Amino acid sequence: MSYIIPKFSDIQEAHKRIKSLIHRTPVLSSSVINNILNCDLVFKCENFQKVGAFKFRGATNAVRLLNNNEAKKGVATHSSGNHAAALSLAAKQLGIPAYIVMPENAPEIKKKAVSGYGAEITFCKPTLESREETLKVVQNKTGATFIHPYDNFNVICGQGTAAKELLDEKTDLDIIIAPVGGGGLMSGTAISAKSLRPEIKIYGAEPLNADDAFRSFTKGELITAGPPNTIADGLLTSLSPLTFKIIKENLDGIFTAKEESIVAAMRLIWERMKIIIEPSSAVPLAAIIENQDVFKGKKIGIIISGGNVDLNNLPF
Amino acid sequence: MSYIIPKFSDIQEAHKRIKSLIHRTPVLSSSVINNILNCDLVFKCENFQKVGAFKFRGATNAVRLLNNNEAKKGVATHSSGNHAAALSLAAKQLGIPAYIVMPENAPEIKKKAVSGYGAEITFCKPTLESREETLKVVQNKTGATFIHPYDNFNVICGQGTAAKELLDEKTDLDIIIAPVGGGGLMSGTAISAKSLRPEIKIYGAEPLNADDAFRSFTKGELITAGPPNTIADGLLTSLSPLTFKIIKENLDGIFTAKEESIVAAMRLIWERMKIIIEPSSAVPLAAIIENQDVFKGKKIGIIISGGNVDLNNLPF
Repeated sequence: MSYIIPKFSDIQEAHKRIKSLIHRTPVLSSSVINNILNCDLVFKCENFQKVGAFKFRGATNAVRLLNNNEAKKGVATHSSGNHAAALSLAAKQLGIPAYIVMPENAPEIKKKAVSGYGAEITFCKPTLESREETLKVVQNKTGATFIHPYDNFNVICGQGTAAKELLDEKTDLDIIIAPVGGGGLMSGTAISAKSLRPEIKIYGAEPLNADDAFRSFTKGELITAGPPNTIADGLLTSLSPLTFKIIKENLDGIFTAKEESIVAAMRLIWERMKIIIEPSSAVPLAAIIENQDVFKGKKIGIIISGGNVDLNNLPF
Repeated sequence: MSYIIPKFSDIQEAHKRIKSLIHRTPVLSSSVINNILNCDLVFKCENFQKVGAFKFRGATNAVRLLNNNEAKKGVATHSSGNHAAALSLAAKQLGIPAYIVMPENAPEIKKKAVSGYGAEITFCKPTLESREETLKVVQNKTGATFIHPYDNFNVICGQGTAAKELLDEKTDLDIIIAPVGGGGLMSGTAISAKSLRPEIKIYGAEPLNADDAFRSFTKGELITAGPPNTIADGLLTSLSPLTFKIIKENLDGIFTAKEESIVAAMRLIWERMKIIIEPSSAVPLAAIIENQDVFKGKKIGIIISGGNVDLNNLPF
């Protein structure tokens, strides 16, 4: 089976397309954290992106590439997370319908976010089968185009614009590291980084409790994991054949991080940088904390993937 | 009794003096919050200042104005909050000793912050009398100069540099609003704002549960309050004769905010802006929420005073 892999020129095109629709997020640093970890970290803060996550980049790129006929019928996805909110807002801005399939037990706050952007929610049972079946029913009824959260060429191109912006601004990084869930952000990051700075090391970071990408990468073949149990709720998904192929060919390694390191890294960023990041965004820093010998003395770019947390349910 | 009131030129001098030693903090905004409140808000984010609070401006200005003989003997204060941390770091950066008197029941986290900056802590009983007595003992022993957290000309000049930066960047504000505790930030803010933009309205914001400044301002004479009970732990202090005089002469009003509005405003900023602010910093937005008719349609600058919160003890 062959897949069309995005090239950097596709990401450049995506960036031109979405630039005026997204926030150019700031790149921040903390001298205190640098001192603690003996390295030079810069954080690309997608927690300040629209809908509070990088997902808005990919969703916007995907909806803007629909043809008129497709656009009229709208877009659909199954997700209870940031991709659902991102697709809803991207569709709203374009003035087209969005249909979101969500498990009936999704948190109230997420239902509200999606319906607040004007999307139509269809509830399903909280199983992958029910999600996929319900999505098919919705698509058959509406003719909407399914925008997969990561197994999608245009979505990956959009996600790659975050690393492009980071490397345009910080041209001398030794390492770039991003969290790995389904691999959309990681794939786009790898393609941008490899092109803009061939000598850079590209690492993924994954919760030890959801280490399907690490195991797939190590074994050289795609392993799909059972339902993982991690606080990093944005990284519960497994790689797809497309994202696995990109990751296998471009990454220099994947590091895992224990749950307690993820919480400690999240807390360090909250306390020292005074910014709100979600647990998934803390996984790269957690991996650095656990592998300080690898990162010591290096200039490192971290993609902070998002800042959507339930303040009623914090890990500290 | 007469007091020497800082002029704007004093604040300009202070800014030249401390500019390279402080962070130029960002001015942020949120279209979502603007839409909710029907006004155009910009936030001067001193939560991103060194030590996580505007206090570092005043403390730095004060220590840099010591003569050689004074500097050698160091500085002292009684405080368990941001001023103690700010004075400790300002002294450390100048290479002089800092002596901090803290109540023995101060939170561990605050003791650690101050000792982390190399200051010498002397513990006292948790009463104002014990704090003042212990400070005198420390001063007699060390010859250190007492740097009052707000009843101090040089401290007020330093605090006024935040509003100066804000108005240099946003030249068309209708209103500037800042929290009022002891009145150091409010005084500096008022002097800067009145000079840079005479037509601007200058408001203070205070917890209803700690409304000594509101009552003093309304009555036209300085009222010292009993121990207030508010979540805004940076605003427990009362105005001094000096700060009251500046506030009386320059402010257009003081608004109070209920505790639940303060928590709601804090939450709104955390959730929508993804930045961590302490409860005291939420008081101006809380006052705006409670008085929307006054602020509707206006361009408003808010000073976010700090971002030091105990993550183990959040109000949500």
